[in-house]
Amino acid sequence: MDSISIGLLGLGTVGSGVVKIIENHQDTLIHQVGCPVKVKKILVQNPSKSRDVGVDAATLTINPEEILNDPTIDVIIEVMGGVEDTKAYLLEALRKGKNVVTANKDLMALYGSELLAAASENGCDLYYEASVGGGIPIIRSLADGLSSDKLTKIMGIVNGTTNFILTKMSQEGSPYDQVLKEAQSLGFAEADPTSDVEGLDAARKMAILASLGFSMNIDLDDVLVKGISSITEEDIKYGKQLGYTMKLIGTAHRDNEKVEVSVQPTLLIDSHPLASVQNEFNAVYVYGEAVGETMFYGPGAGSLPTATAVVSDLVCVLKNMRLGVSGRNLLTPQYTKQLKPKESIYSKYYFRLHVKDEVGVFSNITAIFAQHRASFEKILQLPLKESGLAEIILVTHQTSLKDYEDIIKNLEGLEKIKEIKSIYRVEGGGR
Amino acid sequence: MDSISIGLLGLGTVGSGVVKIIENHQDTLIHQVGCPVKVKKILVQNPSKSRDVGVDAATLTINPEEILNDPTIDVIIEVMGGVEDTKAYLLEALRKGKNVVTANKDLMALYGSELLAAASENGCDLYYEASVGGGIPIIRSLADGLSSDKLTKIMGIVNGTTNFILTKMSQEGSPYDQVLKEAQSLGFAEADPTSDVEGLDAARKMAILASLGFSMNIDLDDVLVKGISSITEEDIKYGKQLGYTMKLIGTAHRDNEKVEVSVQPTLLIDSHPLASVQNEFNAVYVYGEAVGETMFYGPGAGSLPTATAVVSDLVCVLKNMRLGVSGRNLLTPQYTKQLKPKESIYSKYYFRLHVKDEVGVFSNITAIFAQHRASFEKILQLPLKESGLAEIILVTHQTSLKDYEDIIKNLEGLEKIKEIKSIYRVEGGGR
Repeated sequence: MDSISIGLLGLGTVGSGVVKIIENHQDTLIHQVGCPVKVKKILVQNPSKSRDVGVDAATLTINPEEILNDPTIDVIIEVMGGVEDTKAYLLEALRKGKNVVTANKDLMALYGSELLAAASENGCDLYYEASVGGGIPIIRSLADGLSSDKLTKIMGIVNGTTNFILTKMSQEGSPYDQVLKEAQSLGFAEADPTSDVEGLDAARKMAILASLGFSMNIDLDDVLVKGISSITEEDIKYGKQLGYTMKLIGTAHRDNEKVEVSVQPTLLIDSHPLASVQNEFNAVYVYGEAVGETMFYGPGAGSLPTATAVVSDLVCVLKNMRLGVSGRNLLTPQYTKQLKPKESIYSKYYFRLHVKDEVGVFSNITAIFAQHRASFEKILQLPLKESGLAEIILVTHQTSLKDYEDIIKNLEGLEKIKEIKSIYRVEGGGR
Repeated sequence: MDSISIGLLGLGTVGSGVVKIIENHQDTLIHQVGCPVKVKKILVQNPSKSRDVGVDAATLTINPEEILNDPTIDVIIEVMGGVEDTKAYLLEALRKGKNVVTANKDLMALYGSELLAAASENGCDLYYEASVGGGIPIIRSLADGLSSDKLTKIMGIVNGTTNFILTKMSQEGSPYDQVLKEAQSLGFAEADPTSDVEGLDAARKMAILASLGFSMNIDLDDVLVKGISSITEEDIKYGKQLGYTMKLIGTAHRDNEKVEVSVQPTLLIDSHPLASVQNEFNAVYVYGEAVGETMFYGPGAGSLPTATAVVSDLVCVLKNMRLGVSGRNLLTPQYTKQLKPKESIYSKYYFRLHVKDEVGVFSNITAIFAQHRASFEKILQLPLKESGLAEIILVTHQTSLKDYEDIIKNLEGLEKIKEIKSIYRVEGGGR
């Protein structure tokens, strides 16, 4: 090959980073790939917009067909975002025999298995490292580095915005709304932060990671999702007293062939490697039967880290082209998905209750837990300023999701409970 | 291919782990590789020894030629250790067109470039993930995941024994000798711990990581090595007071095209991600121009983690065989090695001195530092029980290795200094 031509869909911050890395590291690319690599055409919305990356105006186009129908373009890099149109473009590219690199988690979470199947049918590569970990090469580690092991647990802090917010809330004792505003002004949260703070972004990434790590098609709908917007300073503070750090944790768990996947605010025991992952950093913790504990840590987002992952994928695609093996390394899932029923999804839980300060209340409450097979690891009762009320914090041992839901229903019916202030998943410590 | 036959050199703890994983994960291997994988012959020293892994006695041999000359054996897995004989076996295997997976860091550190060249000439694969990180897929991450970035710094806790000892010394305030004995009785240190505690094991791994990360041939001799056997509880305690954790840190640093590689006991600032890596765990921290900070964490050794890395390498070798691209993905180094001169190797240093408690001593000492362009970040002076003496702790700003050596020479000549108790590298904090 004399040179390789890339078609780039999108020229936002990640797209600009990709252009810069391809230019700046041309020597390294030639060394690795064997020929020059150039970005031939770029799909943009507005060609006349001023940009902080130097690109020849002639490479810009607003017409995707100019790229998809160009037979000299070998590889499509998709960094435009969006789902339905983007999916159509990538399917067309694959049908035309073009290899694809994408950074699009929404697309991969919703249509990953369809796109991977299309790639396989057309003998094309589809790489998507940047869709999950920003700069963390986690897809590669799951696909290759830990390929001979049986993974039983993947836990991740996979959203930088929420980790930044929870770190600040924890360090400064500030309320959620105030820290969210600070994160927005620093560029760590978007104007509409819903997708991040409600856990949807993390859920998409966990669906992708679980699919790959467990070799089965996990859909976004299979992920139980709860966001961080109702977390209070009080719960963070009580968590600290009990030895826990509040984190938004994605968990994918496999017992035999049955799995559960969730994204939930979690009180994580301080000694867990994920508990010390701060600010906008991400990390994925993987437990394999043979390897034991491993963890991958790095920037979760950002223009250059994400662009690095995109270009590293590009290098793999180009090596495969040179070797004539494009699309031949894709694996279909080994297992059929089986989700765990509520009766066998186990976790510990933290309950904070405001109760009437009367004789027998504690006994009434604990009877409900006992009835549903839940025993306690930690109990804390504190008087409240508001007279006649007490605050009770209960941390259970492992309890099934079914029992947990029944306990809540029963607590809600108890006249002596003024309010269930909060409930969180707890991870770590004893049984 | 109907099935693939492996020749295993060595059946110690790692070799037994490899046999077990290949047996237990046969389904996964068939899914990934497309055919059964079996261990056909195993080189051992004593075939009649009783073993905790079930192998057919007929597969055992004491004659390496039975394996190397068997044309039906496609892949050699080397987990026997040793250097000269082992190198000869692997070179013979490569010449005979057999692909190789090795877990041998001594061999790769000393003869890695020669073996990789032989693999390339013979169109064979040579994979060596298990030689560095035990269960951490770091070789893969450097080779592929971060391939498009320019790495400027690799820092690693790459020896489990020393990290275990330093963690215990730090947590318990116990002296080195006592903790070493404890580590030996727990199986975390060998009867002759020299290679671990004197930093040689870590130096071998750093030579391998730096060679790959910087794409140049770094030899073991290029690594400046200092072990942990003279670390005292006092220095760990003072380090803590100043906000540092004592770790044996391997550092590979690139400025433009010049590099430095060392393994030294280091007072690492508590906020550094490596500072919280405890006990026998290992971690490698990588800084790339584009990606920023990433870290890979996991078990540094152990039979099953290392065996997992070996079998994951085996899967890659087998996939390459299936695709007909064995040996075609090896890269020769892109750069010629250039080592930094002492004048441009910079670091901060911690000095602990016992000095005569006289007028002008402090001024005499600091004058020596000033003469060699070293200024101070932290200063601590404490009275000593022994009358007439004081203890001084100095932490410098960045100082060249040349100046550092000159400072020591000058301090040693100063009559008012009773003893230079200890000197350590310091990492983190300000300039």
